[in-house]
Amino acid sequence: MLSLASFTSRRILCIRHYCKKTPTKLRVSEAISGSNLGANIKIQGWVRSVRPQKKNLFLHVNDGSSLQSLQIIASSDQNDPLLTFGCAVEVTGLLKQSPNQKQPVELEADKIRVVGECNPLDFPFKIKERHAVEYIRQFPHLRCRTNAFSSLLRIRSEATAAIHSYFKKNGFVQIHTPIITSNDCEGAGELFAVQPQRPENDVDEKFFSVPAFLTVSGQLHLEVMSGAFSKVYTFGPTFRAENSQSRRHLAEFYMVEAELSFTQSIEDLTEVMEDIFKSSTEYVLAQCAEDVALFHKHVSPGHRDSIDYWLRTKFPVMTYSEAVDILNRSSQNFVFPTEWGCDLQKEHEKYLVKHCGNIPVFVTDYPYDLKPFYARDNQDHPEHTAAAVDLLVPGVGELCGGSLREERLDLLRTRLEEVGLEDAYSWYLDLRRFGSIPHGGFGLGFERYLQCILGVDNIKDVIPFPRFSHSCLL
Amino acid sequence: MLSLASFTSRRILCIRHYCKKTPTKLRVSEAISGSNLGANIKIQGWVRSVRPQKKNLFLHVNDGSSLQSLQIIASSDQNDPLLTFGCAVEVTGLLKQSPNQKQPVELEADKIRVVGECNPLDFPFKIKERHAVEYIRQFPHLRCRTNAFSSLLRIRSEATAAIHSYFKKNGFVQIHTPIITSNDCEGAGELFAVQPQRPENDVDEKFFSVPAFLTVSGQLHLEVMSGAFSKVYTFGPTFRAENSQSRRHLAEFYMVEAELSFTQSIEDLTEVMEDIFKSSTEYVLAQCAEDVALFHKHVSPGHRDSIDYWLRTKFPVMTYSEAVDILNRSSQNFVFPTEWGCDLQKEHEKYLVKHCGNIPVFVTDYPYDLKPFYARDNQDHPEHTAAAVDLLVPGVGELCGGSLREERLDLLRTRLEEVGLEDAYSWYLDLRRFGSIPHGGFGLGFERYLQCILGVDNIKDVIPFPRFSHSCLL
Repeated sequence: MLSLASFTSRRILCIRHYCKKTPTKLRVSEAISGSNLGANIKIQGWVRSVRPQKKNLFLHVNDGSSLQSLQIIASSDQNDPLLTFGCAVEVTGLLKQSPNQKQPVELEADKIRVVGECNPLDFPFKIKERHAVEYIRQFPHLRCRTNAFSSLLRIRSEATAAIHSYFKKNGFVQIHTPIITSNDCEGAGELFAVQPQRPENDVDEKFFSVPAFLTVSGQLHLEVMSGAFSKVYTFGPTFRAENSQSRRHLAEFYMVEAELSFTQSIEDLTEVMEDIFKSSTEYVLAQCAEDVALFHKHVSPGHRDSIDYWLRTKFPVMTYSEAVDILNRSSQNFVFPTEWGCDLQKEHEKYLVKHCGNIPVFVTDYPYDLKPFYARDNQDHPEHTAAAVDLLVPGVGELCGGSLREERLDLLRTRLEEVGLEDAYSWYLDLRRFGSIPHGGFGLGFERYLQCILGVDNIKDVIPFPRFSHSCLL
Repeated sequence: MLSLASFTSRRILCIRHYCKKTPTKLRVSEAISGSNLGANIKIQGWVRSVRPQKKNLFLHVNDGSSLQSLQIIASSDQNDPLLTFGCAVEVTGLLKQSPNQKQPVELEADKIRVVGECNPLDFPFKIKERHAVEYIRQFPHLRCRTNAFSSLLRIRSEATAAIHSYFKKNGFVQIHTPIITSNDCEGAGELFAVQPQRPENDVDEKFFSVPAFLTVSGQLHLEVMSGAFSKVYTFGPTFRAENSQSRRHLAEFYMVEAELSFTQSIEDLTEVMEDIFKSSTEYVLAQCAEDVALFHKHVSPGHRDSIDYWLRTKFPVMTYSEAVDILNRSSQNFVFPTEWGCDLQKEHEKYLVKHCGNIPVFVTDYPYDLKPFYARDNQDHPEHTAAAVDLLVPGVGELCGGSLREERLDLLRTRLEEVGLEDAYSWYLDLRRFGSIPHGGFGLGFERYLQCILGVDNIKDVIPFPRFSHSCLL
């Protein structure tokens, strides 16, 4: 006759047998959350470590749902030479509390199936090795499989969501400004031209009938929209054909641009700029705590303290003229001139940020002659300025640039005439002919923002597929 | 001695006088919501109608925050010849319940200031006139000031938010796939080439060292990411240099693309495709009820009933072979052949959708030879098919296309060798060498989606700045 213990044990086996037939498919993040303890589950992912011991085999499996991997424990007879770093597996078994403090849960594997092999000799990343970013960058198709870059991509995704969420909550309409354009917004930008791949068939006839370029800014198109909506924004790729290998420049990068109607002063802009910086950063710190901590621990130690300081402190504001005074009073020897009327160089930006206590700082009211035709004339004197503003941040330099736009038809027309652009921008003048409004806007470099909050030195390491001169991998 | 009534009245005047000094700035949508009745407010926007009467002046002011305008009532001595259709105004006054049933609230104006004039003789849109879309399209910088196009842009913004929200809720990581690429994903696509504007300086040296193009799809880059994350998506612009003036094609259009790892069958894809269609549509119908109603009333009468039917009905699924049977059994004379192995043409798609009761329909398992190299071989016979799927929708035709991807290294390599692309796609083969996983994905044409739910005939009318052959305005 069966003892009760034996009966119970057989019954449990039976239940487990039944459960085995229908394991619940979970993501690693869900499994780790601990809410499915005792369940028979299925996990699919990639092996991050293999540790065979005498009796047991330990694996760590990651599926990209979080930085953490799930520990798998199996009997050592389940070991398999194909179970290597980087291979894809499917594991079913019982999710239970871990006896080890290192992780809250572990998966007691019934079955481990290698879904996709990975020859460790050929795989460019080696187990337990911390590769240099320069090395990792050579493998754009595989670098998302490293801890740091998968963290970066999750952060980038959440930061994107944060920005959209900020604008939506504040009543902005999102506009998909065009990528191909027949305008040259900044005038000075190095443009990429666009034409069909096979122009030899009709070399004289342009596809668009006009020269077409990749956008350097969605500003002018947003200004169109600011004539119908109170607040608009765009968040998309922009392009510069700069022959630069700098750690701050890319040929293709993302910009957040906003345009506000019925502005009264430059503070209408700085308020939104500061607000979006702070609210997005708070969102990312909360949503991606582990991923951000990886950067603040291994990439930029101490950076978290700076961020916390920035978040609780009002960003200082100074005029360009005050900035020049500060530079001229300093004991530092600058390479570039610091006279009124000269543009602020990287060394100046760096000094000003440091001068303010290593915190983001707004510089406003730049010399009129330094700014593009659309910047609003302050009509001051003797120092003639435009209502423009930059946000300078520690480590990165210029993060945002914006201005009130010249909404007065006569002033704008005169300035366009001076540079001979009156005809090319007659549509832009129309915006001032028909129901013109005081308005202004700004752009924020999204990659620089990520560099800034994570303390990442090189812009190539915060974008999935960096494009720069002599490099367009994949 | 003052009577109590007189005292109270003076006090009210005094309070109103005080309030006048600090009117609350409200958006039209906020004012109309009725929660600020009795407040002294300021409204800024554009005049949509002017109706002077003997005693009173009536205006309607719109600021793009909603389709509705706010009615302003003022004494006729506040009339001003500059108060014309299209001019920008700032109005302060008392927000009160309207005696008229037509609108819930109205603004009793203390002060009306014309901020930006608009000469009605020059302004291309005329008051109370319903202009043809072809006419409106000629003014890309002003068409957002029409009711229909401002509604469209609000809907587009909310539909974008709906799509991001769907993916976020379902654990997808957003990836910014590159715009400039050295791949040609589809092989057959008409590509735009990219090069710096001034190639004459270094005509032999390419900026990127390799030929670079505008992306036709983010799929292959998403597949990279599907080797590290379980679910990824991208939502951005894609490009085709098609010499087409069709009402369904643009040179620059937006695509939503998703890639899922560890797929088991094509149903893993159709489920997400149907889900995203339905959840986004429900979101838009709820968030933009008035704007959508404008389209369903004036642009596509009766369309709302179709949408409601689609939302409560499971989309039918048929194989390509079944589709061919249906076409061959029909009494309709098709222009293009309907033999097994021929691609489905517009006329066939239209017939199939109608056959299923004018509802979106999935067609799966297309002839292997019709599909690109990455489509997964079903290894069936005698009819050799690939695990690909299209979603056909009424009025628009193909809305989505997707497939399981060939994850088996040997099969993929053989196919790439056959077309001589083995070297060009060695990185793509790497994805199958190192931890390969069964996966699949799809793309959804965002403009076609908008056409589909709003019943808009021409794709040029659902994008802010349409680009097509011989046209790149602004």
